[in-house]
Order: sequence, then C-alpha cells, then structure tokens
Amino acid sequence: MSLPKDFAFTDYQPYDFANRRHIGPSPKEMEAMLKVIGYDSLDALIDDTVPKSIRQEKPLEWGAPMTEREALDKLRETANQNKKLVSLIGQGYYGTITPPVIQRNILENPAWYTAYTPYQPEISQGRLEALLNYQTMVCDLTGLDVANASLLDEATAAAEAMAMAERVSKSKAKAFFVDENCHPQTIALLKTRSEPLGWQIIVGDPFTDLDPVDVFGAIFQYPGTYGHVRDFSGLIARLHQTGAIAVVAADPLALALLKSPGDMDADIAIGSTQRFGVPVGYGGPHAAYMAVKDAYKRSMPGRLVGVSIDARGNRAYRLSLQTREQHIRREKATSNICTAQVLLAVMASMYAVFHGPQGLKAIAQSVHQKTVRLAKGLEKLGYTVEPDVFFDTITVHVGKLQGIILKTAVAEEVNLRKIGEDRIGISLDERSRPVTLEAVWRAFGGNFEVAEFEPDYRLPEDLLRTSEYLTHPIFHMNRAESEMVRYIRRLSDRDLALDRAMIPLGSCTMKLNATAEMLPITWPEFAEIHPFVPADQAQGYRYLIEDLSQKLCDITGYDAVSMQPNSGAQGEYAGLLTIRAYHLANGDTHRDVCLIPTSAHGTNPASAQMVGMKVVVVKVSDNGDIDMEDFRAKAEQHADNLSCCMITYPSTHGVFEENVREICEIVHKHGGQVYIDGANMNAMVGLARPGDIGGDVSHLNLHKTFCIPHGGGGPGMGPIGVKAHLAPFLPGSPTTGEAGAVSAAPFGSASILPISWSYCLMMGGEGLTQATKVAILNANYIAARLKGAYDVLYASSKGRVAHECIIDTRPLADSAGVTVDDVAKRLIDSGFHAPTMSWPVAGTLMIEPTESETKAEIDRFCEAMLAIREEARAIEEGRMDKVNNPLKNAPHTVEDLVGEWDRPYSREQACYPPGAFRVDKYWSPVNRVDNVYGDRNLVCSCPPLEDYAEAAE
Amino acid sequence: MSLPKDFAFTDYQPYDFANRRHIGPSPKEMEAMLKVIGYDSLDALIDDTVPKSIRQEKPLEWGAPMTEREALDKLRETANQNKKLVSLIGQGYYGTITPPVIQRNILENPAWYTAYTPYQPEISQGRLEALLNYQTMVCDLTGLDVANASLLDEATAAAEAMAMAERVSKSKAKAFFVDENCHPQTIALLKTRSEPLGWQIIVGDPFTDLDPVDVFGAIFQYPGTYGHVRDFSGLIARLHQTGAIAVVAADPLALALLKSPGDMDADIAIGSTQRFGVPVGYGGPHAAYMAVKDAYKRSMPGRLVGVSIDARGNRAYRLSLQTREQHIRREKATSNICTAQVLLAVMASMYAVFHGPQGLKAIAQSVHQKTVRLAKGLEKLGYTVEPDVFFDTITVHVGKLQGIILKTAVAEEVNLRKIGEDRIGISLDERSRPVTLEAVWRAFGGNFEVAEFEPDYRLPEDLLRTSEYLTHPIFHMNRAESEMVRYIRRLSDRDLALDRAMIPLGSCTMKLNATAEMLPITWPEFAEIHPFVPADQAQGYRYLIEDLSQKLCDITGYDAVSMQPNSGAQGEYAGLLTIRAYHLANGDTHRDVCLIPTSAHGTNPASAQMVGMKVVVVKVSDNGDIDMEDFRAKAEQHADNLSCCMITYPSTHGVFEENVREICEIVHKHGGQVYIDGANMNAMVGLARPGDIGGDVSHLNLHKTFCIPHGGGGPGMGPIGVKAHLAPFLPGSPTTGEAGAVSAAPFGSASILPISWSYCLMMGGEGLTQATKVAILNANYIAARLKGAYDVLYASSKGRVAHECIIDTRPLADSAGVTVDDVAKRLIDSGFHAPTMSWPVAGTLMIEPTESETKAEIDRFCEAMLAIREEARAIEEGRMDKVNNPLKNAPHTVEDLVGEWDRPYSREQACYPPGAFRVDKYWSPVNRVDNVYGDRNLVCSCPPLEDYAEAAE
Repeated sequence: MSLPKDFAFTDYQPYDFANRRHIGPSPKEMEAMLKVIGYDSLDALIDDTVPKSIRQEKPLEWGAPMTEREALDKLRETANQNKKLVSLIGQGYYGTITPPVIQRNILENPAWYTAYTPYQPEISQGRLEALLNYQTMVCDLTGLDVANASLLDEATAAAEAMAMAERVSKSKAKAFFVDENCHPQTIALLKTRSEPLGWQIIVGDPFTDLDPVDVFGAIFQYPGTYGHVRDFSGLIARLHQTGAIAVVAADPLALALLKSPGDMDADIAIGSTQRFGVPVGYGGPHAAYMAVKDAYKRSMPGRLVGVSIDARGNRAYRLSLQTREQHIRREKATSNICTAQVLLAVMASMYAVFHGPQGLKAIAQSVHQKTVRLAKGLEKLGYTVEPDVFFDTITVHVGKLQGIILKTAVAEEVNLRKIGEDRIGISLDERSRPVTLEAVWRAFGGNFEVAEFEPDYRLPEDLLRTSEYLTHPIFHMNRAESEMVRYIRRLSDRDLALDRAMIPLGSCTMKLNATAEMLPITWPEFAEIHPFVPADQAQGYRYLIEDLSQKLCDITGYDAVSMQPNSGAQGEYAGLLTIRAYHLANGDTHRDVCLIPTSAHGTNPASAQMVGMKVVVVKVSDNGDIDMEDFRAKAEQHADNLSCCMITYPSTHGVFEENVREICEIVHKHGGQVYIDGANMNAMVGLARPGDIGGDVSHLNLHKTFCIPHGGGGPGMGPIGVKAHLAPFLPGSPTTGEAGAVSAAPFGSASILPISWSYCLMMGGEGLTQATKVAILNANYIAARLKGAYDVLYASSKGRVAHECIIDTRPLADSAGVTVDDVAKRLIDSGFHAPTMSWPVAGTLMIEPTESETKAEIDRFCEAMLAIREEARAIEEGRMDKVNNPLKNAPHTVEDLVGEWDRPYSREQACYPPGAFRVDKYWSPVNRVDNVYGDRNLVCSCPPLEDYAEAAE
Repeated sequence: MSLPKDFAFTDYQPYDFANRRHIGPSPKEMEAMLKVIGYDSLDALIDDTVPKSIRQEKPLEWGAPMTEREALDKLRETANQNKKLVSLIGQGYYGTITPPVIQRNILENPAWYTAYTPYQPEISQGRLEALLNYQTMVCDLTGLDVANASLLDEATAAAEAMAMAERVSKSKAKAFFVDENCHPQTIALLKTRSEPLGWQIIVGDPFTDLDPVDVFGAIFQYPGTYGHVRDFSGLIARLHQTGAIAVVAADPLALALLKSPGDMDADIAIGSTQRFGVPVGYGGPHAAYMAVKDAYKRSMPGRLVGVSIDARGNRAYRLSLQTREQHIRREKATSNICTAQVLLAVMASMYAVFHGPQGLKAIAQSVHQKTVRLAKGLEKLGYTVEPDVFFDTITVHVGKLQGIILKTAVAEEVNLRKIGEDRIGISLDERSRPVTLEAVWRAFGGNFEVAEFEPDYRLPEDLLRTSEYLTHPIFHMNRAESEMVRYIRRLSDRDLALDRAMIPLGSCTMKLNATAEMLPITWPEFAEIHPFVPADQAQGYRYLIEDLSQKLCDITGYDAVSMQPNSGAQGEYAGLLTIRAYHLANGDTHRDVCLIPTSAHGTNPASAQMVGMKVVVVKVSDNGDIDMEDFRAKAEQHADNLSCCMITYPSTHGVFEENVREICEIVHKHGGQVYIDGANMNAMVGLARPGDIGGDVSHLNLHKTFCIPHGGGGPGMGPIGVKAHLAPFLPGSPTTGEAGAVSAAPFGSASILPISWSYCLMMGGEGLTQATKVAILNANYIAARLKGAYDVLYASSKGRVAHECIIDTRPLADSAGVTVDDVAKRLIDSGFHAPTMSWPVAGTLMIEPTESETKAEIDRFCEAMLAIREEARAIEEGRMDKVNNPLKNAPHTVEDLVGEWDRPYSREQACYPPGAFRVDKYWSPVNRVDNVYGDRNLVCSCPPLEDYAEAAE
C-alpha cells in the first residue's frame, strides 16, 4: 500500500531526549545563531574553535540513546539488583526517616536542587536562612560557638579538623593522636591527609596511650565506633595545658542526650548529620558538620553563613569571611574545600525544624531504649556485650560464631557489622522496629519478643546532657505539616534557581538537571543501601558504577576511574595523591614541584599544597594562553624535582589553547605528570579527550558536565580518570584503611551517580557530542551579540571562544564608575543570576550559557546586558547621575516601590529593565547586601526573632 | 537501674501524625483558643456544639494509628499486590508516557495539587492559562469551536452530551441513537442517564439501524471500540436534516491523523484525554473533554475558562458563563456537573505543550504503524483481523481459542481484551514496544520479530486529516526541558494554593493534603493498572477499596459503600438513583417527590432533576434551620409520592440542627428515604454518624473530609454509603452494563483512593475524632475573634457554630458601600484566598478553617478580616473615600506600585494590610478581573500572543 504524501512517516522523534529536551536551541534557532556569529554550519564553527590537533579520532559510540522511559526502566532494573536489607552496621551511617514533606518539597523540588552556591546573597536568602538554621542546630547540639555550613563527609571533616588543629595549635609537636574508637574510614583519611604533610598519626586508646606533649592535637569519637561513651573532659584539659587542640567527632543524635563536646571544652567538633533525615545512599551525599570555639572561627575551613544588613538596613544573610577561602588564598591555602553539602544540610536542618528539640530527644531516647533491650536479650543468651554504657551501638563477643551469625542475620534480612574475627557490632536507629530486634536475636540463636524486656537506660549518668539546645523559635514554629510546607515554600521563593532562569556562571556549567535523571535517586533501592553492605547486595550500584566508569573512560581517553572523590577539589587532591604515589613507587621521592599557571582555579594550588607539593607559578600571556616561554623555563628549571603540572583545558580564559600538546610533552619530557583539570570538560566531551592530548589524570565535575544539580552549593562528585600507569595508585578503600583513601565511602556520593549515568544513557555518544557543540555555539553567540557593547577578553586565533566567554566590564568602571558588582546586581532586576564575577580576571564577567539554554533565554540575557551598557553610557554622557542610578541601586525591591521615590529615574526603569518578565518578574527579597558590615559584625547563628510565633511546645 | 529524673522516658511521640502533623493547633494553642471562646476544655465545647441526641455511641476504634513510615510501608505492600502487566485492553484506557517533567512539577507539586477551583480568578491565573491551553488543544483536535475545561470521564461526558443534545435539538423525538461501537461503559451510562428521563436508547450499527427521524441525537465512536474508523459525515448530514444532534466520541490521539469531528460537521465531540500523559490508574482520574459548535456554547455543561480584562485593562483569565451552572440553576439545571478534572486537564494540556503538533503526530503515527505490524503478524498466522482500516485497535477472530490465547498472553505478561466468546481486542499505545508485539504473537502461537514486517499504514485515505492543529505559539514554545520547567513554575507562581496560605472556604474543607498521603499515587503499581484487568491482578486495589469501604461504613454508620461516583455531585446522583431503584423494586413507581430545603447545595436539586424527581422546596426559618412546620406539611402533602428528602448535616448554615432525627422520622413515616449530603462530614467524623441519625444514603466527598487535594478544581471522589436495604441497588458495573452504573470505571477514580486510605491509617479512629473536634474549635475560634466586627449569621441554641461559620458583610454594603466582593479581593492583599462568597446566603462569607490550620495562621486571617472592618469604618466615618479606597481597588498589584500613585491612601496601606507577609508577600498577578466584560466578549481559547517566542519547529 502506498502512503499518501501528507501522511509520510515522520522521522521526528518525540522522545529524543538529547535534541528535544536537553539541548536548548532548536535546529532553526541554531541556524539563526550561526548566522549572527558568521557561520554556515555548526561543524564549521566547531572546526574553527577546537584545534584540529586535539580533536579525537573516533566519535563516541554507544549505540542508540535511550528515551526517558527506557532509561528509567533501565535504572529501575538496576536499582532492583540492589538488595534492600535492614543495615545495623552503623560506623557513621544509620537508618533514618526522611520526613515525606522534606523529601518532596526539598530533595525532589527543583527550586531547591537547581540553585547555585549562594555567592550572590540577594537571590539566595532562602537557602542562606536554611543554612543559618543548620549552623545554629550544630552549634546548639555541639555546645560550640561557630559552625560552618557543612563539609563533605565526617572523615574529610576530621582531616580538615586535624589540619586546622595544626594551624591553630600552640604546640610545636608534629603528631596527631587518633582515638582507636574512631571510625575506620576516619582513621584512614587522617592517615592520607597527614602523610604528605609529614605529620605522624598515633592511633591508640586515649586514656592510656595519649601523651599531650607529643601532639598538636587529638581526636576522640563520641560515642566510639564500637559503642563506648566516655568523658573526654580530663584528656581535653590535659591537651590544653600543652597548647594542643581537642577535636571530638560526635554523633548529633547522641548529643540530644549526652553532654556536649563544648561542655567538655573541646575546641572543635565534627561529625555527620546524615541521620537527620538524609538517606544513607550507599555512602552519600550527606552533610558533615564542623563547629569550633569562637577564637578559632577565622581559621575554620568551609562555607560560613552570616547575618548582615542590606542597603535599607534590613537583615540579610550572606556568606561570611570568604577571605579565608582557597580561591583567595591559593597556594597559601590550608584546605581546598570550596563546597558545602548544601542540599543535605538544608534537609538536616529541616529535620531539626520538623522535630524540634523534644522530638530529637524522644527519637534519641527511643533509639537508646531499643538498644538496651537488644543488649539485654543478647546477654540473656549468654553473650558478652560491650560496652557497659552506650547510646545506640553495642559490640558483641561471638568468638568463632561470627561467620554463622552474620550469615544467619543476612538470612533474616539484617546486616550486622563484622569487627575483627570474633566480634559483631550492632547500631540501632530510628527505623529499627521490634521485628528487627527479634530478627537479630534469632540470628544470635534467641527467640524473644521485645516486650519481654523492660525499657531501660545504660547511659553514663555523669554524661547526661543538662544544657539546652534548639531553643531558637525556628525549631518550635513548625509543627503542623501545613506550616512546614509553607515555610519551605517561602524560603525557596526567595531564591533564583535554574527552574526560573538561566544561570550563566562561567566555569560552573549550570545546565539542565533533567527530571528523568533526578527521579531515581529517591528510590529506596538506591537511597537505602548502607555503604558497607556485602558486595552482593549492591550489584545494581556496582553495575552502574562500572558502566559509568567505562563511559567516562571513553569520554576522557583514560584507562581507569575512581568514583571516590566527592567534590571537584577532592578530585584534584585525589589526582595529585595518585601522581605522588606513582613517583614514590618509582623511588622519585624528591619530585614535589607542581607547575600551575596563574590563571588556574584557586583549588589547584590549594590541592597541591595539601599533598605537600611546592607550587611554581607559571605566567599567562596577554592573550590568556599559558606563557610558553615561561612554562618551558620553569619546567626545565625544576626538571629534577618536577612532579606534575596542573592545567585546565580549555583554559580558564575560555579558549582552546593550541599548544596544549606541547605543554604536556614538555612536562613528560622532564619526568612529570600532567593533571588536566576537568572543570571545562563540557567544552570537550565527544570532541577531544584529555587522555589523548597528554593528560595523565583529570577529575570530572559530575555536577557540572554530567548534570548532577548544584543543590544550592553541593553535593558534587569529582571522580578522577587516569592513564593505565597511574591506575594502581588510585585511592584505596577507606574502610579497610588502604592507602590514599580520600572520602569516607568507597564510591563517594554514590547515590547521585544515577543522575550522570542516566544522562549518558539518554544522550548517547552522539547526543553528548552535539551538546558540546551547542555549548560552544551558545557561548560564541553571546560573545557575538555582546560585541561592540563589551570587549570579549580572550579568543582563539580565529576569534572564537570555547564554551564560555569573558567580557570586560572594567572600562565601565573608568568611564562611568560602574563596577562589575553593579552589573551583577542590575542583572537581578532583569531576573538573572550574575555570571561568574572577577574570575579569572578581576573586573570581568565570565559567561557560560551551556547547551541547555534556548535562544530565547539567551536573547533575554543579552538584552539585559546590552541595556546595562546603555545605562552606563547614560552616566558616561552625563544623562544619569553617577551615584544615584539604577546600576548602583540595584537590585531594586518591592520595598523601594512602596516607599517614597526620590530617584532621578522612574520606578518603571528601575524594576523592568529589558529581560525582566512583567507578570512573572522575580523580586529580590532584599536590597544590596552589605558585605563589610557582615564580616565586621559576625553573627553566624539565628538571631533572636521577636516576630516568630510563640513556641508550640 | 533507676532513671535519672531529667532523662525520664518521654511520652512525646515524634511520629504522631494526627496530633503533630495533621491537626494544626498545638495543645497549648488549643487552650488559648478555648479561652477566647469561653471554654475550659475541648470536650465541653463539643458537648455544647454537637447535640447529645445525635452523638454516636461507640468511638471509632481501629487500633493504633500508623506513623507516616508505617503507612507508606503498608501502602507499598498493598501496591505490590497489584500485578503490573502490559495492558492492551484499550476500551478507552491506554498506556501513556507521563513526561517526568510534568509528573514532578505538576502531579507531584503541591503548588498545583493543593489549589482550589479558580472561582477567584485573580489568584488563579496560572491554572486558568493551563486550562485555556487545554480548551484550545481540544478545539484544535476536534475541529470544533468551544471546549470546556474538562468533564469527569468519557462515559459521563457522553451522557452529558446526550442530555445537551436533547436540550438543543430541534427534533421532538425522545430517543437517542448509540453506535454499537461505543465503549460498553459509555453505552451503560447512556442507559443509566436516559432511563429516569424517559428517553429511549437505540443501540445499533449507525449505517444500517439509524433513522434520523426517530431520534433527537446520536453518538458515534471514532475510532470505534473494536477499531473501526468510519466517516460519519453522511450520517451527520442526515441527522441535521431532522434537527437532530450529532455527537462524536473521539480519541484525541487518533485525531492527530484523522479528519476531525468538526470536519464531519459534528455538533458535539467528547472523549478522554487520558492518553495525553495521564496514567490509567485503575480507572481514573482523567480529564474527559467536550467541545461544541459555537451555537451551542451557552448550553454546554461544565467549567469554561474565558479571557477577560482586569481593572487596568490587561488581559486576565476567568471562568465564563457561570450562570449556566447548576449552583445557579438549581432544580432547573440540566446537569449537576460542578467539577472539572483540572489537575489532569492541566497535565494533558502540558503533554500537548511538551510534544507540540509534530510530536503528537509522530506518536500517533508510531502507534498506528505498530498496530499495522501487529495485524500483519496475526494475519500471517492465519487469523482474521478486523477492521480493514484502523488506528490503534484491532479485533481478532479466534473462535474457541479465546480462552487459551488470553491465558497465554497473561503468561507473557500482556492483557488483551476479551470480546464476546470468540474475539480478542488489542489496542496499542505509545508505550508498546517491539517485545510487546512479539509477546502478543507468541500468545497467538507465532514467533516473529517486529523487523520482519515493513512499516505501513491502514488508515482510510479519505479520512486522513488535512486541517492543522495546535498552531498557537504556546504549543511551539516549549521544547527544551529548561523552558518547560520554567513555564510550569511561572504559571504555578501566579496562583495562591494551600502550600502558601490557609484557604478558609466554607463547605469545601481545604485541609492538609499530607505528602505521605500523596506519595503513593505516582507509584507505578497504583498508577499503571488498567481498570479492566482481571481481578487477580488488582488484589492490592481490591484490598484497599474493601478496607477503606469498611472504614467509611464505621465512620458513617452505613452498611455498604460504592466507590464508583467520581465527584460529590456524581455521588448525589448515584445515591438518588439507588433510592429510585429501591422504590421501583418495591413497585412504588409513583414515588418521585424529593424534598429539598432552600439552603441546600445547588447540586441537590440538580441531581434530583437528573433522576426525574420532582423537587419540592422546603423553607428555612430565620435561624437557618429547616422550617419544621413547612417540612412536615410538605412531607404530608406529598406522602403518597414521596421518594426522599435531601438534607445536609450539619446544615449548610454551619449549624448542628437539633431536629435532624425528627426530620428523618417524618420522611420515613411517609415511606420516603433520607439522603444526607456528606459535604459537611468533616464536622461529624467520630462524633456522629449519618446512618445512626436516620440517613439511608449519603455521599462522602473524599476530596474534602478525606484529604484528596482539590487539584485546582478536581479530581474529586464521591463514594456513597447506604443502609443495608439499599445495598442491592448500588451502582452496577459499567463494563458489564449492569443497571445504574454512573462512572466509566467500576471504582471511579481509584488511583486517588490511597490518599484517603492512608489518611485513615495514619489518623486512626481517635485521631479522626480529634480532627473533627479541632475543626469545630477552629471555626468557633474564628467566630469568637470576629465577633463585634461582624455578625455571625447562624449558631446553635448555645451560640455555637459547627465546623464553619457564616459572617455577614451586608451591613458594610449599606453603611460603606463595601460589597462582599470587595472584602474577598482585599483579602488577597493580605495573602488569603477568600472564604466562600454569597453562599448559602448572598452577601455573606462562609469560613471553614479545618483542623489543619494553626492558631498563628488563623490569627493572621482574623487580623486581616478585622483590618478590613476598620477600613470600612473609615469609609462609614467619612475618613476614606467611598470609591477610591483600598477595598474597592483590591487586589493591589505591583503594576499599581510602579505607576503613578494618585490615591488617597498610601502604597504601604495598599499592599501591606495586616496579615500580609512582608518579604514573602503573595502578589496577585492581575488587578480585579472584569466579569461582565468576559461574558460579553467570550473568548475561550488562547488569544494570539504576539510576544511569544517564534515557533521552534
């Protein structure tokens, strides 16, 4: 039968995820955009942008891409390969109940998860308030003065605490004491971190093995990994006598019942807030916390939210004390931490808001009570249970029965913890039910009912908590779900995230986080797997990790991948550790020089510092490329001791440097390794492979190129790829104490890997390549549209930028007094998040649109930028006041409109600059935030709020 | 071991859902509220409110309530008892792919699902736009002029179309012709609907059995239920010659390829938009559509969204032509429809926005192509496949093999449709995959691969579509997911729903829709079950339905429940049909009088009209109670023909009438049945049972009392409970054509029943009872707080209101010219949805806070109301202008602030009246909407929008 003409089977693919959902511009739009740039075809543009010399030979080929539904089916099948047993393994990871209202309205809500790090405080007031709640919660529970907005995981937090102790300690000792009751992964990471820095780690029983004279600090676990609850006050007092620093790793739920670290006079407390409603997720992401005494607050790593005021004098939140941070301190930095786990910290803080102090206390008591009952049953069966007093964890001496009990427990669908060869650890949590206890007893050969044992307690009486916590009204206002939903909504409405507008942040790759990619992460089969379950219970995860690793190898040209690093900076650190281990294994113990161009991300030198390398800075020439002469000279000069170079490709100036192969050859010639920072991988996927052009190791920011959402400032994932010769030196397992472990969990933040995997599955090799091309197209289109109004700072010899472009706003400062800050804030009036400010060049804006933005949205942005240029021109030409103008007064708020208007421009001009939506305009909740005031008047926990509703309880 | 005092095990239950999440006020707040009302205890208040005579004897007792987690586990276990096979049963329900971006951002987003019906247009612009898109989509696809905003299901839509045809037809005939190719459930409902009205239903082959002279109208299915695609143009022309009306029931996906009903000159088209992204959900909810020729638009039932202007002349959407509706026309109404399926219509419209015309066409072609391949395989196996031309459905003659093939198919995890004893129906859809086709072939004894058959078509060439559809830019703007997410967000931000503020709508019970209740409905094990699967594949649903039915019996004192009615009005209709059937079975064919007080919901008389009853209106005395003298008199007067009375308890005036038992006795004495409208059941659960006080039948609004969210104006569920003697007359199965079927699916909108069930599970009997008490407390608290400022119209002899109160704003009209409309719109400035306006008494506000609101939120509302009273006083006292004042100009918008301000009150007063949030203020997107303009200039599809981005394709 012949087909009528009109009916001809269309080749239109409605479920083509890559071209119809992920990539913004339509074919027709692309045509128009290419015309503006001056090209006939996308490939012609790419050929002029990406040097032939670095183009990859074979295209990425993985067969047909999946539709959303096919990918979700594949994910479901994979998830079902994980076995969801009840895990009582503990060791820093506990069952928890995520309140549904928090799951749906935060974890599954793009308004929260697509937000960026709150560098622009005006449009981040919602998450800043949530983080301030988090800091307040941590301060209260730990009894310390200042808490940061979270760290990557408990073990890295311990390592950060150690490094901080070394800095602030008055002791000259170069050893750090580690309680043998610390979690194994914590001990492993402390070893990893200390070794390159030459600090000795002494592991032992602090009550017998700790001599304060020997150490600059010590860390104690509270409760200990085997369950002990001990008072460290005496030890801490002794440490203080020698000027050493006391760190306590504390479980925040236990602190609801137990004397706080602060009450023991600890200097630093760290720990994980995972069990405050964040699923274990096969290891992460979760929010670790750090709290310190007031005296040390300026030495604390990580993000810190503080209270300041805006231009009207109203209260406003912001990130405080940023001068402490790696991107400022570079090779003088003592930590490369530049991420928080914001989304998870927000969840944990909301869990505290949801339950309040009374709820937390009741949960803690219930967990303890169940543990006592469990212990009683085991004792009745004749087992020796340690310790005498405990919170939620006990250790049972089982001798040769260990294997059979563990196996029987698994048959009862319960995972217990294997300790040594003759003990078993059990940690209960808020999910533990009577049937679980009974199953455990059966595994130990008993047949009891929970009701046979009276509720009781075995907490040390002298360590019971007497100080109050969560007294702030915020922890008492939300009791009914109606109120909770509305509070969460109000906060999210204050923020501008990807769900409302493009976020053209250079180097941050704020691309689409597709819903189909996000759905699986809250499936229980991914979310509720303990990181230390037997491998056969995590077959789904293993398969996913292997397949994703293989795909990342295909993309990068590397031979092996480690999924352990749970942030980009952590990836750098892991990569450099790998290089270091390689040199050491070759006997090249002297190789410790790391060449880094001045244009590098601040984390590069900071990471190099952390692995004990000497940073040698290489110049950058005027066109933004690495100064080859200087590079060659420095490489030769340090040839004997050359460990590696760290470069970014395409460069942080947004250009594909043509001499990248030569750079790599120089380094290799001198025995060094090449670290290629993967921050700009979004400009390369499918077109060029770092492993092909000379890289030995790279980290990949899965939260940039591979669609993991930024979560308002975390989580991230920074796996590293390496060439075969480095593979043996990849990070080891943190739990078995293998060398070089960098994260608490073997696969970092495993539970967000389904996002990147499904992105690859749905895009396919061709789709990924097309995405790269369109990312480059979009950036060049912006550069072309803004040309004339602004100078584009760097471009290739053919005048092309890569996937981002830097535009120069410094001329406006000279001609009109308009700063880059003014431009950024004025963009808020148009409903945009500012591009990256003053990096890598002060006074400039780095714009990265990504492939996900449509022409319409990019045009809206360009119109806003062009209008700003015209406003500056009005100042230049004297038509507008130099001080009282829309740029200086931006962002404009409803408060401005409501009050008296005495400005020399109209309300209309103030509020509806080009680009702004009319009906759907985003209104900044505060006027411009005063940064100086905030740092001078540091307040980092919730201020008293008289206007809050009276406490409900 | 003794417990230290401070540690004493707390009896605080952090997971007590009822008291800590669902019920708003805390114990302390309740104490304060009781004090304001003048009571010492909640029970004392209840004793003074709910007459002793009607109190139930035994408390509700179902054992301990579940925590959220326990309930979710129970739901999961129940869901897993449903077997998720691939259903190719068709018959009006098809597999569909819900785009994840729509699932997460609409179906799972409280901003959409907790919204109310858009009666207040200013705060409903988002969903009104989405519904306008829906209407436009329906008009385009059907080729007709005006479409409504959806109906309950395809079968009820057919019944509505028949009733409408009867009204508008110029023929005097009293029969309606029904194509035998209509879905069985459609035929069943047409029979149900026609029978009480005395219309004959003629079922047959329209090409042979239809004589236009005999009928006032006819309905044809297109494509037919067995797959036929036939041109009805000739038949329609013949119908028109006699003045009869032609209705076409059309599948909207098929219309992407086929000549539209409009092109055949049909007068009315109806159908289901289920397959536009709305899961089958064991029968519903989905959105049915109705579209009509322009000439008939004022006769069309259902909601109709139209375009109007606001006070500034800007475009604004609203509900049009409300005077057509049941609540206005009462016993003169021809339909009781007062609900749309808004949430589902929004989803379907977004599916069209997501795919655009090209996508829909591609999907339709793909479905067809797969069906042709399937048919070819079956033919190759020697089966006779009907019809020759088809879209997605074929019928296979299998003779005696029917049983074995159906069984084998199930073994292959595929459900096929049993037709008669010797045929099998198969309908493919966008989810059908090659493996499914191959499984079907295997079930028929074949072993093919899909690739063996060339793509081909078997559509009738003369019925191929030539007219365009979805040409409006809205169906071309959203292609990238970024854009889609932002469009959905922008729309939802315009609306004010429960996720931002209390919605104190009297009689509508806008209570918390808890997240834990909502989570299960998108689980595939609930969402993807076809309504006509074999019973053993829906064990989970059956168990849930039985248990929920039993609980509803316990709550109401009835003996049996039917879950079939899928709205409250549908419940009334079903209940009256049941009463009618009972009388008929008793030989009382003459009993057709229905007593209804003037205070009744407008649907009551409308429903009575639909079952052919004569409505006799009973007076209401000044205190709001039914006038007993009049009631007695009317009952006696009509004793011989008395069918029933319809009363609402507590009354629509918000009072527990003390003579309700007497009313029931009078009716029973005269041989009538008592219908107690369950609209106000939220005031009774656990305290009183309609079945105990004399009711024979009641409907329950699960979307009011039992937590199904209003979805912005649907879905609802209106199951009915009856006493044992009525149980045999409950609605029959729609598919087997049993008498009295009222919905297309046997259990109505089954997929939202998990919401009500988990509510019951988590509340327990005690929690439900407490909720009722607190609902009464909250209402009495509002009445007490507003006393002095406003008169409370009705109260019991002890001065108490039930769960709602009516306040009188008429005095303000007299003294200050302030109308109830002004008050309602001014409340928007304070961030509130208005209470129910002018019902049941014109010029009043009926306020129902429900138990879920906290004291703080209620106080915020009361402050707003008191401030409005003060503003009116300022007018009364001449301190404020009578015309140019904040009440008349409300709601105030940002547009007001931006422009010139020449009003005699400040911007501050305008925008921040008491109750309004400062930073988090809700801004109405439009000024007051002009209702008259909208009805005069009726535009019910998307107007041309010059400012839209150019079409992408």
